[in-house]
Amino acid sequence: MRYARVSVDGRPMWGRVGERDVSLLSGSPLEGEPEVIGAVSRSTAVWLPPVVPPVFYAVGYNYPRHIAHAGAETPARPEVGYRANNALTGHGSPIVKPVEVEGRFEAEPELVAVIGRTVRHATPEEAREAVFGWTIGNDVSARTWQHSDRTFWRSKNSDTFKPMGPWIETDVDALAQTTVLRVNGAEHARFPTGDMVHDPFDFIVEMTRHLTLHPGDVLWMGAESTCQLEPGDTVEIEISGIGVLSNPVHLEGNRA
Amino acid sequence: MRYARVSVDGRPMWGRVGERDVSLLSGSPLEGEPEVIGAVSRSTAVWLPPVVPPVFYAVGYNYPRHIAHAGAETPARPEVGYRANNALTGHGSPIVKPVEVEGRFEAEPELVAVIGRTVRHATPEEAREAVFGWTIGNDVSARTWQHSDRTFWRSKNSDTFKPMGPWIETDVDALAQTTVLRVNGAEHARFPTGDMVHDPFDFIVEMTRHLTLHPGDVLWMGAESTCQLEPGDTVEIEISGIGVLSNPVHLEGNRA
Repeated sequence: MRYARVSVDGRPMWGRVGERDVSLLSGSPLEGEPEVIGAVSRSTAVWLPPVVPPVFYAVGYNYPRHIAHAGAETPARPEVGYRANNALTGHGSPIVKPVEVEGRFEAEPELVAVIGRTVRHATPEEAREAVFGWTIGNDVSARTWQHSDRTFWRSKNSDTFKPMGPWIETDVDALAQTTVLRVNGAEHARFPTGDMVHDPFDFIVEMTRHLTLHPGDVLWMGAESTCQLEPGDTVEIEISGIGVLSNPVHLEGNRA
Repeated sequence: MRYARVSVDGRPMWGRVGERDVSLLSGSPLEGEPEVIGAVSRSTAVWLPPVVPPVFYAVGYNYPRHIAHAGAETPARPEVGYRANNALTGHGSPIVKPVEVEGRFEAEPELVAVIGRTVRHATPEEAREAVFGWTIGNDVSARTWQHSDRTFWRSKNSDTFKPMGPWIETDVDALAQTTVLRVNGAEHARFPTGDMVHDPFDFIVEMTRHLTLHPGDVLWMGAESTCQLEPGDTVEIEISGIGVLSNPVHLEGNRA
């Protein structure tokens, strides 16, 4: 099943995604079994981030080739960081590059686990059961700020820097898929989703030793490769079995 | 006015805090003008974190004496970090020290600004108007983990490590108050709230150059002093004009 959030007359609504239509739902599939109460055409749907998480978790270095490329050390344990909800945007919406950004402005294609249960002290099996489904994230990063600042507040969490979507796929073997990164149709990266140092279930087991995960929490799993984005580009991240997250890149226009 | 969230028959409800009672409200004062629909006695109220923020912002080094004590550099610009909602707990609820924690386990008494408006590109005056009210936070920290880990995920964001409350005070000159930290009634720190390198309005102006603040977002303003906590202790943070945030410290008991 594919679940999305769409904007209907300016209001966010949950939907179940079919071939042609998005069936609108009476509530969140994370909180029960909502009823179908309408439909919109898939071709004209305005896609929102498929969930607004209570906590937005993100893994840093997690793919061996990325770690080698960065000259970083392979993490001995699953250690997680955070991103911020203000930065979320949906499939099809623009990534807005601030006019102050200098240097590399990059896409990072990531698999995202969406938590479906309240879970603490998870066993490996409970960690698997805790995942409701999977979506796609683009961890857009302004590298000069990332290196100059004490935190990732503006380098990774400026408004629109966290496209997520287009939907949550509940029926996919997410670690046996392929991630492809394209800019203006040209392929810039291709890697197996599952080629991770620590997989999502390793993270859930380790994290829930000390914290409670809640329905709707998201866990972004890191990227193997990145590529440069320029205003005017369209960036696409495809993960087989899930879908395609596509966003145009705009230059911030309303402030100098 | 003082606004709180309390647990009524296991459900979270907003309330307006009076001398003896908490008047229960029909909704959030951050989203309109709710009506009074009941009351509970203040003496028996079960206090929840007064808001669950869309984004949980926290300032690190911000008080000159703390910076000097740590041998850190004075931040040239307001740079903000993050904490996680799973760690929030209310006034009166226990701080649970994990059995794995070794070394210093400390309280950090902090003034908290609660955002009341959607704001981007704020002027200094708009920054002042964006604050709905003020509460108190305890940025409980496990120092060994803080120094060993790549992120603050478990050192500052394990469950119950972020007591916040008891309520939001809307009518106080928050930067002209005194913060007092007590453990078992003995005073361990006392400092002027306003003795900051960058005040909350400086942060809001700088942050909103790149991000949108939303109603309910919180901004924890850093601490001047810290002190050690042991299981069995009760830690109190008082900020004059706001109130007292008090929490007992327990040792995690259900897992070895």
